[in-house]
Amino acid sequence: MGVVIAFDGSGEKPRASLDNLVQLTAADMALVNEFILEKAQSHVELIPELAGHLINSGGKRIRPMLTVAAARMCGYSGLHHLKLAMSVEFMHTATLLHDDVVDESDMRRGKEAARVIWGNQASVLVGDYLLGQAFKTMVETGSLDCLRILSDAACTIAEGEVLQLSVSQDTATTEDSYLKVVGAKTAALFQAAAKVGGVIANRPRKEQEALESYGRNLGIAFQLVDDALDYSGKQADLGKSIGDDFRERKITLPVVLAFRRGEEKERSFWRRVMEKGDQTDDDLLYATKLMDRHGALSDTIVRARHYGDMACDALAIFPDSQWKEALAEAVAFCISRAH
Amino acid sequence: MGVVIAFDGSGEKPRASLDNLVQLTAADMALVNEFILEKAQSHVELIPELAGHLINSGGKRIRPMLTVAAARMCGYSGLHHLKLAMSVEFMHTATLLHDDVVDESDMRRGKEAARVIWGNQASVLVGDYLLGQAFKTMVETGSLDCLRILSDAACTIAEGEVLQLSVSQDTATTEDSYLKVVGAKTAALFQAAAKVGGVIANRPRKEQEALESYGRNLGIAFQLVDDALDYSGKQADLGKSIGDDFRERKITLPVVLAFRRGEEKERSFWRRVMEKGDQTDDDLLYATKLMDRHGALSDTIVRARHYGDMACDALAIFPDSQWKEALAEAVAFCISRAH
Repeated sequence: MGVVIAFDGSGEKPRASLDNLVQLTAADMALVNEFILEKAQSHVELIPELAGHLINSGGKRIRPMLTVAAARMCGYSGLHHLKLAMSVEFMHTATLLHDDVVDESDMRRGKEAARVIWGNQASVLVGDYLLGQAFKTMVETGSLDCLRILSDAACTIAEGEVLQLSVSQDTATTEDSYLKVVGAKTAALFQAAAKVGGVIANRPRKEQEALESYGRNLGIAFQLVDDALDYSGKQADLGKSIGDDFRERKITLPVVLAFRRGEEKERSFWRRVMEKGDQTDDDLLYATKLMDRHGALSDTIVRARHYGDMACDALAIFPDSQWKEALAEAVAFCISRAH
Repeated sequence: MGVVIAFDGSGEKPRASLDNLVQLTAADMALVNEFILEKAQSHVELIPELAGHLINSGGKRIRPMLTVAAARMCGYSGLHHLKLAMSVEFMHTATLLHDDVVDESDMRRGKEAARVIWGNQASVLVGDYLLGQAFKTMVETGSLDCLRILSDAACTIAEGEVLQLSVSQDTATTEDSYLKVVGAKTAALFQAAAKVGGVIANRPRKEQEALESYGRNLGIAFQLVDDALDYSGKQADLGKSIGDDFRERKITLPVVLAFRRGEEKERSFWRRVMEKGDQTDDDLLYATKLMDRHGALSDTIVRARHYGDMACDALAIFPDSQWKEALAEAVAFCISRAH
C-alpha cells in the first residue's frame, strides 16, 4: 500500500501491470471474495465443493475488479457494486464450467477441470446454479438497469458460444466473423462488468458508454492475446496445454491470418487439420511454423494492441485519477502477457 | 367458446380435465406462444432451430398456463403476466435441454432429444441462451418481486438436480429425502409460476402464499404421477420409454416404497440393479412385479392425491370463479394421468 503513482495525463504509455488495480481494489475485492464463498454455499454439498475448486483456483478476478474499479472511479460509495462484481464472477465461472464440458477440456487454470473430477453432469448443473445465484444477487441490488445489462450479456455470451460452435472448423471464417464470436463470447462480459460500475454509481450516459467501450475493447484485446498464447505461451503461465485450440480445431485469429496469407499447399494443410481433424503429432509444430512465416501471431498481438488503445482512449473523458491510471495499466498488462 | 361450467363451491370433486384451463387461457396463451417464438430467435441460426425443436414438440405448457390463470384469477388486466409466463416456459425448456444432457436421454416428448440431433454441446449452450432470455424478459416487467421469486426458483431447481445426482443410485434414500429432490427440481418452478401471477396482480400476501402453496403441491403431485407412469404408463402417452428411470438408476418414490417394504432378498435385487447398475433384460419386469406386490405404484398415486388435495385446498381463500375451478380441475387432471 502507500504506492505513489504519477499520473499527469500527458499521454505517456501506462505501465503494463495489474498491481495498482489489485491494490486499489484490495479492500473491496476481499468483500467480494467473502460474498463469492457465501453464495457458493448450499446444503447440497457437491455444489460448494465443485464451485470451490474453480473459485479457489487462482483466477485473477479481472472481470469483477473492473466492476469495482469502474464504480469507484465514478465516486460510488455504496455496497451494491460488490454484489454486482460477485454476479459478474459467477456468470464467468458458470461459463467456464459449461465451456469445459462443451470443449471436453481436461485442464483449467493449471488444475484438472471440474468435469474430470465430478463429471460433466455436475459441471452443467453447478454452472446453472451459479448462474441462478448471479441473477438472485443482482436482483438484491434493486437496479433494473444493471439487471438489464447483465441479462443481456448472459444471452450474448451464450449466443457467442453457439456461434463459435457453428464457425468452428471452418477455415474460410473471416476476421470479421471471428470478431463477432469474440465480441459475444468474451467481450460482452467485460463490457457489462465495466458498465454496471458506472450505472450503479448513477453516472451520466456518456460515462456509462465510455465504460462500456473500455470493457468491450479490453475484452477483445484479452481474447486475441489468449488466442496467440495458445500457440506460443508457456504451459505453466497458461494453466492449460499449448495447442488446445489447435487440437479442438478452434478457428482463432492466428489461424484466420495464417490461412488467408498462405499459399494453396498451406491452405490444404489447414483444411486437413482443422476441417477434417486429421492431425498427427508434428502438425502443431508445423502450424506454428506457418504462423511464424506469415507473422500471424505477431499480427494478432498488433490487432490486440489496436483494441487496447481504443479501450484506453475510451477512458479519456474521465478526470485523471489513480483508478483511471490503474484501469489503463490493466489494458497494457493484458497485452503484455504475450511477451 | 361458450362452455358453461357449474361451480357452486359445494365441495364436489372437480372433474379431471385440462380443457377449461386451456380454453380460458387460450387467448393469452396465443400471445405467450408468439413471445416464445420471438424470443427464441437469434441471428445465430442454430439457436431457433434447436430451441424450436423442443418448443414445438407439443408440450402442454402447464407451467406458463398456471402463471396466466393465476394472474387472471387475481383480476390482473395488464400484459406483464404474458412475459412472466414466457420466462417460466423458457426456464423449463432450458432445464429440459440440460437434463437430457445430464441423463443422456435419447427421447423427449416422443421425439429424438435435441442432444441426439445437435449434440450435447449445442444443447448446453442453447439452454444457457434460453435461461438468459428468460431473465432478460422478466426484467422487462420491472417487477423486482417477480425477479426475486423466479431467480430463487432457478437456483432451487439446479440445487435439486444436483441433489438428485447425489442421492441417485442410493436405495437407502428416504421418502423425505426424495421429496426434497422433488420439491426442488420440479415443484419449485410450479410454485414460482403460480405465485408470480398473484404478485404481478399486486394481490395481498396471503393470496400470493396460497398460489405458492397451490403450485408447490401440484408440482409434487405431478412429479409423483410421472414417477409411477415411468413404470406403468403407455410409451405413446409418455413421449419417452417405459423404464427410463429404472435404466438411469434413478431412485423415485415407487422404488423407495418397494425397497422399504421388500424382504432382504428383494432389497438385494434393488441394490444390484440400482446401486451396481447390473441389469439384465428381465429386471424391469421383475421390478414392476415387486412394485405390484407391495402396492408401490398405487400408493405413489395415493401420495400424489394427498398433495393434489393440498393444492386444491390452498385455492379455497379465493372467491369461486371459472379460473379457480379450472385450476382445481388441472390438479385432478395431473393425477388422472395415472389411469
